[in-house]
Amino acid sequence: MGLRDFTLFDVIARNARLFGDRTAFVCDGRRISHGEHLERVERLAAGLADAGIGIGDRVAVLAQNSLEYVDLYGAAARQGAIVLPINWRLGADEIAYAIADGTPKMVVAGTDYAELIVSARDKFPSVERYHAFGVAPAPFRPFDDLVGPAPSCPAADVPVDAGFVIIHTAAVGGRPRGALISHAGLLAAGLQLLCSWSLGPDDVNLGMLPLFHVSGLGLLLGVQQAGGSTLVQRRFDPEAAVRHIEADKVTLFAEFPPMLGALLDGAVKAGRDLSSLRVVTGLDSVETINRFEACCPGAQFWAVYGQSELSGMATLAPFRDRPGSAGRPILLTNVMVVDDLDHPLPAGQVGEIVVRGPTVFKGYWNCDADNAQTFRGGWHHTGDMGRFDQDGYLWYAGRSPAKELIKPGGENVYPAEVEEVILGHPAIAEVAVFGVADAHWGEAVSALCVCRPGQTVSAEDLIEFVGSRLARYKRPKHVIFASALPRTAAGAVDRARVKQEHGAAGL
Amino acid sequence: MGLRDFTLFDVIARNARLFGDRTAFVCDGRRISHGEHLERVERLAAGLADAGIGIGDRVAVLAQNSLEYVDLYGAAARQGAIVLPINWRLGADEIAYAIADGTPKMVVAGTDYAELIVSARDKFPSVERYHAFGVAPAPFRPFDDLVGPAPSCPAADVPVDAGFVIIHTAAVGGRPRGALISHAGLLAAGLQLLCSWSLGPDDVNLGMLPLFHVSGLGLLLGVQQAGGSTLVQRRFDPEAAVRHIEADKVTLFAEFPPMLGALLDGAVKAGRDLSSLRVVTGLDSVETINRFEACCPGAQFWAVYGQSELSGMATLAPFRDRPGSAGRPILLTNVMVVDDLDHPLPAGQVGEIVVRGPTVFKGYWNCDADNAQTFRGGWHHTGDMGRFDQDGYLWYAGRSPAKELIKPGGENVYPAEVEEVILGHPAIAEVAVFGVADAHWGEAVSALCVCRPGQTVSAEDLIEFVGSRLARYKRPKHVIFASALPRTAAGAVDRARVKQEHGAAGL
Repeated sequence: MGLRDFTLFDVIARNARLFGDRTAFVCDGRRISHGEHLERVERLAAGLADAGIGIGDRVAVLAQNSLEYVDLYGAAARQGAIVLPINWRLGADEIAYAIADGTPKMVVAGTDYAELIVSARDKFPSVERYHAFGVAPAPFRPFDDLVGPAPSCPAADVPVDAGFVIIHTAAVGGRPRGALISHAGLLAAGLQLLCSWSLGPDDVNLGMLPLFHVSGLGLLLGVQQAGGSTLVQRRFDPEAAVRHIEADKVTLFAEFPPMLGALLDGAVKAGRDLSSLRVVTGLDSVETINRFEACCPGAQFWAVYGQSELSGMATLAPFRDRPGSAGRPILLTNVMVVDDLDHPLPAGQVGEIVVRGPTVFKGYWNCDADNAQTFRGGWHHTGDMGRFDQDGYLWYAGRSPAKELIKPGGENVYPAEVEEVILGHPAIAEVAVFGVADAHWGEAVSALCVCRPGQTVSAEDLIEFVGSRLARYKRPKHVIFASALPRTAAGAVDRARVKQEHGAAGL
Repeated sequence: MGLRDFTLFDVIARNARLFGDRTAFVCDGRRISHGEHLERVERLAAGLADAGIGIGDRVAVLAQNSLEYVDLYGAAARQGAIVLPINWRLGADEIAYAIADGTPKMVVAGTDYAELIVSARDKFPSVERYHAFGVAPAPFRPFDDLVGPAPSCPAADVPVDAGFVIIHTAAVGGRPRGALISHAGLLAAGLQLLCSWSLGPDDVNLGMLPLFHVSGLGLLLGVQQAGGSTLVQRRFDPEAAVRHIEADKVTLFAEFPPMLGALLDGAVKAGRDLSSLRVVTGLDSVETINRFEACCPGAQFWAVYGQSELSGMATLAPFRDRPGSAGRPILLTNVMVVDDLDHPLPAGQVGEIVVRGPTVFKGYWNCDADNAQTFRGGWHHTGDMGRFDQDGYLWYAGRSPAKELIKPGGENVYPAEVEEVILGHPAIAEVAVFGVADAHWGEAVSALCVCRPGQTVSAEDLIEFVGSRLARYKRPKHVIFASALPRTAAGAVDRARVKQEHGAAGL
């Protein structure tokens, strides 16, 4: 390690010394102390080293949350490997694409996903080893085979600005791109949370978001930097969540709709006490936030704006400070709103949100031309639109027209990729995919379609057609048929008018 | 500015946006908001640019604390200049040495120090401009001439790991060396304080320590990063201090003995309410800390270990957690205790304290050979001795024998430089200078002297002899005459026996 470097592994080693006997992680009833976590990470790191995994090598992970998944992040940090966590909600082709794009040396999968990997195996010529959490057919070996009997290799010399995680996102051209995030970026993002919420060793995080999502990973790391603990949930289960909050005195969690609403329903039903909570963050409806704050008067809901490309959050504030805004620029993040020529805009004017600071990602994996464009002028161009008000609160105003994004339940759906699939249906001549407000998921996918002359297709069939080719959350919830798409004078699809005329579907 | 850079100037600009109307600094009854501070800094930066000060150029400052001094740090950060703050308590030769060593392009001095600078001027061939806070003779121009009418130059492109401050310290060979501290180091050190004490915009720091000292500068910056305010005191005045604490609801300060004791005396005498305080940090006696905590039951005294070379603190904890220790490793700081071969020592064993992490300085100015030695193995070798206990608390055990350091009132006195001066007195044949506990200053300088045959000198004359050649705080408080120095079998002065036999002087 270099003189001024400090990575996640340093956090793990420090926690083992300062908070050795205290709880670091709980999952499926297993409780791991900070001291035990260090030992598990060092033994796994020895196995990675034996398997030839070193600085810059990618390890793809396709699995639900688990203690082993958390260990893998720590061991990769120690050896300088790059974790490529895959969204298991994606379709088979999308998963195969993301893995192949990252050219990993190793793939680690949960039992449920092993078959999918095996069937796509010929797309992964770079992979030398397959390991599975649990039982899986050849070529998978047990994950436990990777765990050495003792820490036996020195930690690698990992520069703090080295890449650490690749998260596929930002499918502007119809294909997702891998955002390469550094140790420095993730740790700076964690520090921002630590400072914003005064996190400490007594904090308990309910880790319900998946570890492939920057919010799930980032909050876990921020709490870990503070010496606190995370209850790692395999996936969201509202009944288990409220039971944990009461029994383990959970102090904070991150969520996307409909998690908080479901959790409040569960708490009422089971008569659970949620009073240990002090911070909940995410995206949700005013109605749900009001219900939450009425139910937990000692807690605050924090509004945010963030991206994988920012290693987490860029703006943050208690929802109540300025309801409807996304908060104010967070500690180490320089945020501007600019016009098409990159000139800063005054308060009140909508433009593209650009960001500078240590949390900015290293670039999209293997996309040098895109990166030059994204980072032009020394600022990361988020592709998101917004405006500042006079007091420095950011108001999110949707994706920039060229980069529209729909976020059902916190996932990213790019209209272009859904449109490409729909246009592959023989009955469809034209389509515009767009987001509509949704009471349950926050936002839902809607498709305005024009059939070919003489052709028909039902909404149900078209939805199923998309669902069989992409992740299920990318299926349109609403399909509307029209005789033509509204177009601008220049002939392009007028997306603003599409939303204006057909945007009320979900309400 | 680069895509991932974030310097003090970003902090200043962010504060202006988020906390524009709130108080940033108060000095001599003048109150400056965060918005005004940005404007002052931008105008001063324009003046620095006009004066030809750019990336890496040094600006020496010899002055007591003031708003202009604070502005100068901000403007230097914006333009990438390196501030060379000089300890005004040093002797004239020492001041001239430090300035000459830094080869600044500009010198800025307080009125009181202008004459000293003028008389040493031929030692500063690198200096192109002299400016004075207040009235001063030629070649000094008024500081206000540097302040442009409006922000007129773009901010420089300052890498976050560029040097920002040079603090002269660590006079191991009898001459102090300039520790070059980076933006990244100082901001990481500030973040550590922000996290440790949950600093926020409501915090008010009583800035009594000088701005040439890493503790004074570091706490001011940490509070600034949190959006809080600092009451900048020209120098320590216990009566003014307690008046400010009561009137301005001061929440924290840093101190060195005898400041806290004097302040408590002052509060009792004036009947001042100190209950707004929540954090005091520094070095002090158990007795004074007990008095403080009895007087302010809502506040904590925090024990520390730090160095200029660490941009501030390395360990920190509430004194009450483990009285007598220096606290535990702070958030971004990796601390080990090692033997002479750099092998880590187990808890309980005393060795040299070594540190790794983003707060480690860039090296001693123009001392490449020293730096290679100081940074060997990828760790900064502090020259300080200590041991960890089983719970990870660091117990300071003095300077390493080769690098003994005496700290009267928080200042650094290296025995070697005092010994060199004393040996210059015609009556003295041998001398050993060492530290003794002191009820008032925490530690005091003591000299064990052997006269040449037939020669005599009084203790008073010898003390005055040193005081006329070095900073007054480096004068011995105690002079003891002996017929010989205790020596080891190898013939070296046995410093351990000197301290053991003569160390009770001050108690």
